[in-house]
Amino acid sequence: MATPEPVATTPPPISFERHPSSYQHWKLTFDGPIATLGMDVQEDEGLAPGYKLKLNSYDLGVDIELADAITRIRFEHPEVHTVVVTSLKERIFCAGANIFMLRGSTHAWKVNFCKFTNETRLGMEDASEHSGIKFLAALNGICAGGGYELALACDEIILVDDANSAVSLPETPLLAVLPGTGGLTRLVDKRKVRRDLADVKGKRAVEWRLVDALAPSSKFKDVVAKRAHELAAASDRPSSGSGITLNPLNAAITEGSYTYSSVSVEFDRDKRAATMTVRAPEAPVESTPEAILAAGDQFWPLRVFREIDDAILRVRVNEREIGTIVLKTTGDPARVLEADRILLDLLAQPGQPGHWLIREVVHFIKRTLKRLDLSARSFFAVIEPGSAFAGSLFELALAADRSYMLDDPDQTNTIQLSGINGGVLPMSNGLSRLEARFYGTPDQVGRVLSREEAFEPADALEEGLVTFAPDDIDWDDEVRLAVEGRAAMSPDALTGMEANLRFVGPETMETKIFGRLTAWQNWIFQRPNAVGPKGALTSYGTSDRAEFDFRRT
Amino acid sequence: MATPEPVATTPPPISFERHPSSYQHWKLTFDGPIATLGMDVQEDEGLAPGYKLKLNSYDLGVDIELADAITRIRFEHPEVHTVVVTSLKERIFCAGANIFMLRGSTHAWKVNFCKFTNETRLGMEDASEHSGIKFLAALNGICAGGGYELALACDEIILVDDANSAVSLPETPLLAVLPGTGGLTRLVDKRKVRRDLADVKGKRAVEWRLVDALAPSSKFKDVVAKRAHELAAASDRPSSGSGITLNPLNAAITEGSYTYSSVSVEFDRDKRAATMTVRAPEAPVESTPEAILAAGDQFWPLRVFREIDDAILRVRVNEREIGTIVLKTTGDPARVLEADRILLDLLAQPGQPGHWLIREVVHFIKRTLKRLDLSARSFFAVIEPGSAFAGSLFELALAADRSYMLDDPDQTNTIQLSGINGGVLPMSNGLSRLEARFYGTPDQVGRVLSREEAFEPADALEEGLVTFAPDDIDWDDEVRLAVEGRAAMSPDALTGMEANLRFVGPETMETKIFGRLTAWQNWIFQRPNAVGPKGALTSYGTSDRAEFDFRRT
Repeated sequence: MATPEPVATTPPPISFERHPSSYQHWKLTFDGPIATLGMDVQEDEGLAPGYKLKLNSYDLGVDIELADAITRIRFEHPEVHTVVVTSLKERIFCAGANIFMLRGSTHAWKVNFCKFTNETRLGMEDASEHSGIKFLAALNGICAGGGYELALACDEIILVDDANSAVSLPETPLLAVLPGTGGLTRLVDKRKVRRDLADVKGKRAVEWRLVDALAPSSKFKDVVAKRAHELAAASDRPSSGSGITLNPLNAAITEGSYTYSSVSVEFDRDKRAATMTVRAPEAPVESTPEAILAAGDQFWPLRVFREIDDAILRVRVNEREIGTIVLKTTGDPARVLEADRILLDLLAQPGQPGHWLIREVVHFIKRTLKRLDLSARSFFAVIEPGSAFAGSLFELALAADRSYMLDDPDQTNTIQLSGINGGVLPMSNGLSRLEARFYGTPDQVGRVLSREEAFEPADALEEGLVTFAPDDIDWDDEVRLAVEGRAAMSPDALTGMEANLRFVGPETMETKIFGRLTAWQNWIFQRPNAVGPKGALTSYGTSDRAEFDFRRT
Repeated sequence: MATPEPVATTPPPISFERHPSSYQHWKLTFDGPIATLGMDVQEDEGLAPGYKLKLNSYDLGVDIELADAITRIRFEHPEVHTVVVTSLKERIFCAGANIFMLRGSTHAWKVNFCKFTNETRLGMEDASEHSGIKFLAALNGICAGGGYELALACDEIILVDDANSAVSLPETPLLAVLPGTGGLTRLVDKRKVRRDLADVKGKRAVEWRLVDALAPSSKFKDVVAKRAHELAAASDRPSSGSGITLNPLNAAITEGSYTYSSVSVEFDRDKRAATMTVRAPEAPVESTPEAILAAGDQFWPLRVFREIDDAILRVRVNEREIGTIVLKTTGDPARVLEADRILLDLLAQPGQPGHWLIREVVHFIKRTLKRLDLSARSFFAVIEPGSAFAGSLFELALAADRSYMLDDPDQTNTIQLSGINGGVLPMSNGLSRLEARFYGTPDQVGRVLSREEAFEPADALEEGLVTFAPDDIDWDDEVRLAVEGRAAMSPDALTGMEANLRFVGPETMETKIFGRLTAWQNWIFQRPNAVGPKGALTSYGTSDRAEFDFRRT
């Protein structure tokens, strides 16, 4: 069966923070409403040693820069309406994920790499759908595998029409794996390519909908520019005005903890658990667009969810033995509810799309919570006196696999909902977390949302908003046993169980990518035909030919 | 990583044909509108040596009998309106899939075993939704794992309320695998159990919707009988009259071929391919309910799809090296279209549910085609002069991953649609195969359906009904290279690719079971924490404790 995990090419603890001034692989330039993301991957600047990023092939480091650029365009450049994604190399757009990187990576690294790249591409589609930013893939040359998958995540694809340019997904014939960064799903579900044509190299790329347009080399730049401006014209983003600056998070990252301004993560390695504590605002949050713009990245809702997002990402790739994350909150829940109210008030006025920055903040919160839903860790919310599980922070409890609420008659301990729990922070499947929770009793969604007061533990339990409400005598043991019990189970079985239980109800293209496509890819990433000693991924670039066990499963 | 595939416990070539007179594990009894399926698994009658089927645990052989019984109830017993699923053993309903069988099985065997059991359980739900047969799980004792999954496939669950009876899904904590026979999906999507309660052993089984009712031992039989009759009363099946008999298929099974009355499969082992040829009716099919009842299982639509179904099942488990199945048809397409018309005419008259037997035949065809969609083999339809790819047989071409149609000006070669392509044979995702094919151009569905004439090759290609239409000069090479090219690829990558490309668009509980749940389970079935030397499945029942690699993926 599968070979032992390769060693050594997994990089040391990595950071997900980047800044355009030090991008190694992308040039981000601006021209009025058009931003251009030019891919120019530096061969020798891979995140780990052992491979060269030739032909604009990419590794996680390339993708972290891409994700950073897209986030900055959203927050720092409200005047951008179209992003042109192209390459600065001649005759090559992008060769996809670097095969030598994949070959040398552990199974878990491959899985986490794909997950992050999927989140980044879905983030582009999120910006297109919700933020008035269209993405135009300008394929100036060969576009293969993950390169084409990146193009598929754009709204439109223009391919240069010369003798050698083409789009293709060679993963299956060449490497015995899938186009797993959304490729198969987007091909048939987004671009609606007929499946019997989907595995065929596209001679008739436009007719088969593999791309939207061809343009001869001599006119390529003009055609791209013209289409970029046409796409930009339909945007509801502001045409001028300043964005805000996303400054470094300045977290203190140590062996034992991550410490941010409003978020901390403490590791209990013996228990294979971590406690993430999120603090409510310590002062009233800014309430007008002007004040929020001035506060910039220090506006509490943005600041706290940027910190949560960064912490989740770091744990995912740097802390694989941490199986359970205990979610706690502290502070004044009234301040959280006030922040939620401000967000909702400014998000949408009748007939208006709402303030662009507020929209970005809310969608950032949404994406962070999705990141949590998609993290292969168990989450337990622990609700104690002094906590602030209200509104947007109560989403953390709803996202958790279980929640424990102390029911001690001598101490006040409440949770509270806000309008923000009503649907503006949907999961990948399109349901709000309350809708997912009450999938069997949909009337409860409206009932709990209509209640303006806080819920005491007995009420919260009765209404199904928490899983357990032990009294003070049982509390310590029950929470401890829950964490220990979870930690004793197979991490793989938990990952599979959570990936199923968390996504009740409808599926979307997004959940199909993370469910159907990713799960099959992960299976294939374990199969000897891909990763065994004679597997296609193992043999790629060597003098050995892949040898397959041809038995179907 | 994973250990080598165990040898020897995979049984020799097996048959999927059974008859109640020789059931080893189930007693099927009838009492007016109520049939009772009593599980009484014989420990020593496992399909393969090496394990004992204790405590009503099951292997594939047990499930083949179950599938046979359900099919026979549908066809042979139209008077049955409710099926009570229970156990004939004291204090034990069913312990689930036999763990020693799983432990000793190859990866592929586990996967195929789960697929068949999933199809069987979905078949129960199909009978409930479409055939007026309700299933009542009467849990007379402990019901664990796959036993509870079987109960979840029933419409209602009654649990005896004694000191030791309970339902539970111990797969994850005990074996480090998932309740993969629909368990996780049905728990949250069908029974709508809250996910934070889904992994908890149910003390409050009714309140949490794990079961529908409890009944004390003394009243259990009465409560079950009463509820069975209540469910039966709502059925639209006939209250009396005869069914038809499903006789043995009498296929000639040899090393080189399967030969049925209207279906043959020929193996070309060098090419890892098989050709399945389906013959159109050789005489006019019966056209009145009376004549069809009299024809029974010799009514061509039923006969031919029973044979296709059996052939697919045999290939799946007995012919693992056959990677590609070439689908051909022969005979008079007008006879197929006539059969389709008869089916549609008798299926539904305004205000009536249609004739019960016709309904069963159509749903059987539907389930067979679903079985094909879910088979981990590549299907290529090859459409040549003399073929009969019309109507219901054209569904085979629509189900295929590609289709090739000879365009030879000197020979007539056509395909043709019928009303049966319009939606009565939906895929698991709820779409007709035409809707799936034209997901990007939905107007085409109506257009091609409205055309009463046959399609010549050029038309068929133009309308997107076939993938390729080579001329007679290219034909042989093109078809040969297609089959050889497919055979050269990794079977695992093809399985993953096909599982993604075949299911465009919406997902249903059924596709979630085969996509999301099964794909994750298959991944887990490869993971050392389950199947490695120290894995939980490997260690079960030995003196060794499972040792996990606790790193999350």
